[in-house]
Amino acid sequence: MNKNSKPRIVVIGGGTGSFTALTGLKKYPVNLTAVVTMMDSGGSSGRLRDELGVLPPGDIRQCLVALSHSSTLMRDLFTYRFEDGNLKGHTFGNIFLSTLEKTTGSIEKAISEIGKILKIEGTVAPVTFSKTDLCVELIDGKIIEGETHIDDADGKKKRSRIKKAFLKPKVISNPTAINAITHADLILIGPGDLYTSIIPNLLVGGVTNALKKSKAKKVYALNLMTKYGQTTHYSASDHVQDLEKYIGKNMLDFVLVNNKMPNKKTLEWYEKFAEEPVLNNLEKINTFKIISNNLIKDVILKKNIADQQRRSIIRHDPDKLAKAVIDLL
Amino acid sequence: MNKNSKPRIVVIGGGTGSFTALTGLKKYPVNLTAVVTMMDSGGSSGRLRDELGVLPPGDIRQCLVALSHSSTLMRDLFTYRFEDGNLKGHTFGNIFLSTLEKTTGSIEKAISEIGKILKIEGTVAPVTFSKTDLCVELIDGKIIEGETHIDDADGKKKRSRIKKAFLKPKVISNPTAINAITHADLILIGPGDLYTSIIPNLLVGGVTNALKKSKAKKVYALNLMTKYGQTTHYSASDHVQDLEKYIGKNMLDFVLVNNKMPNKKTLEWYEKFAEEPVLNNLEKINTFKIISNNLIKDVILKKNIADQQRRSIIRHDPDKLAKAVIDLL
Repeated sequence: MNKNSKPRIVVIGGGTGSFTALTGLKKYPVNLTAVVTMMDSGGSSGRLRDELGVLPPGDIRQCLVALSHSSTLMRDLFTYRFEDGNLKGHTFGNIFLSTLEKTTGSIEKAISEIGKILKIEGTVAPVTFSKTDLCVELIDGKIIEGETHIDDADGKKKRSRIKKAFLKPKVISNPTAINAITHADLILIGPGDLYTSIIPNLLVGGVTNALKKSKAKKVYALNLMTKYGQTTHYSASDHVQDLEKYIGKNMLDFVLVNNKMPNKKTLEWYEKFAEEPVLNNLEKINTFKIISNNLIKDVILKKNIADQQRRSIIRHDPDKLAKAVIDLL
Repeated sequence: MNKNSKPRIVVIGGGTGSFTALTGLKKYPVNLTAVVTMMDSGGSSGRLRDELGVLPPGDIRQCLVALSHSSTLMRDLFTYRFEDGNLKGHTFGNIFLSTLEKTTGSIEKAISEIGKILKIEGTVAPVTFSKTDLCVELIDGKIIEGETHIDDADGKKKRSRIKKAFLKPKVISNPTAINAITHADLILIGPGDLYTSIIPNLLVGGVTNALKKSKAKKVYALNLMTKYGQTTHYSASDHVQDLEKYIGKNMLDFVLVNNKMPNKKTLEWYEKFAEEPVLNNLEKINTFKIISNNLIKDVILKKNIADQQRRSIIRHDPDKLAKAVIDLL
């Protein structure tokens, strides 16, 4: 690490996980880059992708809002989700990003313009600028194509374990993302859904190579809960094992695990979806150090995000998570 | 007029007419206020009004873009019209205004925030902050409710002349609009559709009174073409006569009329919709001065506005119109 500059931290992921990590980390004097999955194919992002022919904006939007230093008003605007009419389900920020991509012809330019409006500090780097779909092959040989179809398991249908993930078509990475990974002091992988937020980034050509070359400390923040359909009944070691299929063995320096159980009511809610806390069964003989902390947020389910879509109701606490990460620098 | 300050010009209207006037006038060292109709009930504005419960944003958006000193990119973004999917027909700027109105709870705040992003110079003052509908009573006694229904005459159905316009319910005016009118040096009424862009402003409680009190020079910029369903076969004097029903006799100081005929091809296009140039039959014995100039723009129909909606293909030239107005100061 260059002693004259701020520590460079790269967060690899997407969705709420990256939002949470960035929200906590931006309070420290660090240089942040969010490397963001571009494989979302459902919800507002999926519709904009299909209808306007743009790249999926949702994960980018969440990172932009997290890195924003603008007024609450502007951040509220970007996360505003329409509840009625034809706009129903879209967030304003998604529409803004997609419209700017259409008018400028480039998502990079769109991100840069919105970055100015939202006064972001740091960099949001889509992992790729190419259109591609996430696919998984299950152990029973079944192939599922499209992020949203991997994600939409409803807890009633039985689905066998994921054997491997791949992109269709193969795509190359955004040089900004590769550069950030290569020169980082610390790389935080996660938190986020293993197969739909984290692994898609690792499948893009050049990313795992850059991770190997990078001298950064590599930290994996485990999810708090399993996710039905992609990590059903997964323990901590199952998560790490699957992740290592893509980044390689002996790559992780630290694994962050939560050690505080959610309350009974929360657990009952998750049980309805066959989801449960990620059990820490990691053994100390591993090549990485296990950091076991209370990382959860006490605040539960916000009313304004309780829309039609099903959402987790426990979260990483941005401040606890950020402190645990910063302590590793 | 206060010699130490810039001349204060108020443009009363909405839609493309106000856009054109403001685009030309902003090049002069004047203090501009756009008093804008809030009675649009069709198209993108109408849908947002119905679905989100907001005030119609379209006329405000056009004035904001006209007064913008920001990059072409931002102005392009605001006027971007979606062509596919559920967003089809909406302009981005309309969605932006409506979302901000929802998140801030106030169209005033929304205008102020967007004004900053678009770097506007001048003021956009909605004529009212209350929800109301424009209605007209025809000579045959028929009542038409809603701006869009007045506007949607298709040139095939015969419709009798408009007897009077009124608002349902009656609403009070925005004090900012009244203040601007009262203290203006010059008030430009129009150009714009007489019944759907100009008169709605005059029906709002307090506006005609402020016009009477104001020592400003009052200028009426006549439309170039008649509009089927509201000013079918109207001559210049028909326009003035109808306008004077609302502002009162002897109120106008100047009437601006175009004296350059559009080319034959353009006229043929309009003939299909039973629309024709506004004939200048104004007599010099009137209480106002007639300014007859070439005011039209040679550039015709832009491809990117040739969407589903029917639009005029001749326009006032912003520079010629502005010069004619500035000469009257």
